[in-house]
Amino acid sequence: MLKNDLFLRALRGEVVERPPVWMMRQAGRYLPDFMKLKEKYDFFTRCQTPELATEITVMPIEQVGTDAAILFSDILVVLQAMSIEVEMKNSVGPWLPHPIDGERALNKVIVPDAADALSYVIDAVKMTKIALEEKVPLIGFGGSPWTLLCYAVQGEGSKNFDRAKEFCFTQPQLAHRLLQMITDTTIDYLKAKVEAGVDAMQIFDSWGGLLSPADYAVFSWPYINQIVQALKDYIPVIVFGKGCWFALNEMGQSGASALGVDWTCSARNARYLSGGQITLQGNFDPSRLLSPIPVIEKEVKAMIDAFGKDRYIANLGHGILPNIPVDHAKAFVNAVKNYSE
Amino acid sequence: MLKNDLFLRALRGEVVERPPVWMMRQAGRYLPDFMKLKEKYDFFTRCQTPELATEITVMPIEQVGTDAAILFSDILVVLQAMSIEVEMKNSVGPWLPHPIDGERALNKVIVPDAADALSYVIDAVKMTKIALEEKVPLIGFGGSPWTLLCYAVQGEGSKNFDRAKEFCFTQPQLAHRLLQMITDTTIDYLKAKVEAGVDAMQIFDSWGGLLSPADYAVFSWPYINQIVQALKDYIPVIVFGKGCWFALNEMGQSGASALGVDWTCSARNARYLSGGQITLQGNFDPSRLLSPIPVIEKEVKAMIDAFGKDRYIANLGHGILPNIPVDHAKAFVNAVKNYSE
Repeated sequence: MLKNDLFLRALRGEVVERPPVWMMRQAGRYLPDFMKLKEKYDFFTRCQTPELATEITVMPIEQVGTDAAILFSDILVVLQAMSIEVEMKNSVGPWLPHPIDGERALNKVIVPDAADALSYVIDAVKMTKIALEEKVPLIGFGGSPWTLLCYAVQGEGSKNFDRAKEFCFTQPQLAHRLLQMITDTTIDYLKAKVEAGVDAMQIFDSWGGLLSPADYAVFSWPYINQIVQALKDYIPVIVFGKGCWFALNEMGQSGASALGVDWTCSARNARYLSGGQITLQGNFDPSRLLSPIPVIEKEVKAMIDAFGKDRYIANLGHGILPNIPVDHAKAFVNAVKNYSE
Repeated sequence: MLKNDLFLRALRGEVVERPPVWMMRQAGRYLPDFMKLKEKYDFFTRCQTPELATEITVMPIEQVGTDAAILFSDILVVLQAMSIEVEMKNSVGPWLPHPIDGERALNKVIVPDAADALSYVIDAVKMTKIALEEKVPLIGFGGSPWTLLCYAVQGEGSKNFDRAKEFCFTQPQLAHRLLQMITDTTIDYLKAKVEAGVDAMQIFDSWGGLLSPADYAVFSWPYINQIVQALKDYIPVIVFGKGCWFALNEMGQSGASALGVDWTCSARNARYLSGGQITLQGNFDPSRLLSPIPVIEKEVKAMIDAFGKDRYIANLGHGILPNIPVDHAKAFVNAVKNYSE
């Protein structure tokens, strides 16, 4: 039995004493201990070594005090499992030597036995569950098929992922074939994580907000929705689409347990757009953590007042930035913990 | 008298035979003739030489057939006039050797006589008006004070402009002082453009969508609103805030003649959020111009059907991309011109 199940109770929509809090990328570069491991081991070594992934996952629980852990990993491991080569270059980010640029490249992509191909993640889940000693729940995650296609086709990070969009707009049949392969792999992968013991699942649609609502309805949402349908009876699912305010209504009807929102969508708009019943998660501007601590405390209070204490999970509106002082991150977490109406 | 005043009639909300069309960055790198000038003259030489600015401004009218011209220039010339050094580096973009990092740097910033400091723009307006031979209206423009602060403080382009935000969040008094200086300079500058003969004015808040609605109401909108109030009795003003769907309601009440929207805000949402009466401008996804021409034609028709033919200006939702084939840009423009309900 979990000692702190606040996060899971908020996902179930129960009345809680205060909102739970965690931060996207909470096991990240703002933590000095993370940076020490980063100097010693490259990115995918950290992902692929269960001992390291476990150590990193547990860091923010001990050092910042969040109410949930999220497994240290990366959304791009799914592409690697599909035999799409992905490197992580320092100060550049993801780099794919052979982006999917047409049918010939697509023909080499496989739908693997994900539990097998990504057994190191499954091992990390099991090891982390033990290390957490039932203190807080463990969140597993995956990238949305659209977001993974963005990297698979563009081959690197981008402001607008124009090559990925061009692929979708000029070769929609190939795009849908790739999206379905990613979806099938992801479902298989996330189900294995559920079996290994994660307590909740978050889908990150980091680049959904680059699409028009009409294109989102074609290239992103149907695939996320397949994943939600495949998982929702087994585990609470959170859907986070950066910039996807326009899709909150449809997301709210999917059976997901919660929806993540970014800071450009006010609490009021998010409640209205999502239908008013579903648990929401977010939405502190990550740059706002650069504010002086008293301002952070004031703004966190205002955020919770606006969302309401129930059906709400306090979080950032996107990943924590590497240049945030640790005591500012702690101030954010503590401000939520000290919340009273 | 203008031979084609469709754009101005749409700005006045009149019933029109079809929507007018232009494209943000229509005088840009997708045009081979622009690239020829780019090879010969650096960026600010093109801005500062009225003959070149005129030639570039007129290009898309002749070569693509838009219903309005927009003066070739850059929002950053305002910072230069305020004695903030700005360079344009190839394949990097704006680069400021001395960003505004505190009071000492701010003390060196001036509010100039803008018509004098930017006389080359005023000359370009007059020369362009002559070159256009009253064929189509000429749009002048300025950056929003917040967007200009982003560059002035960050010193370069950025995904999240975290240093600019940190400046605002930790030194709000200095930030407001800088924002007001930019506002005063901009009003002076845009009034001079009006006197020189531009027919409409667009304010670009390119980075407004990086702010939460609460921060937008503090650091961006009040300054844009000052500009709108100063100009609206003399010229139709269009406010375009990339990602600023959350501010459409307030923008709609400012006396601006039209609001620009990007492609993540559907026509229906934009009409609803802006109050349903004001002329809207947008919002074709620039990447959608990579689609095959028949798809572009179909999507343009759907866009106009959704916005309606009146109180509407067809445009992209952001600047045209450098890699768009010219015949795709023409197909976009022609699809609007051939529109019938």
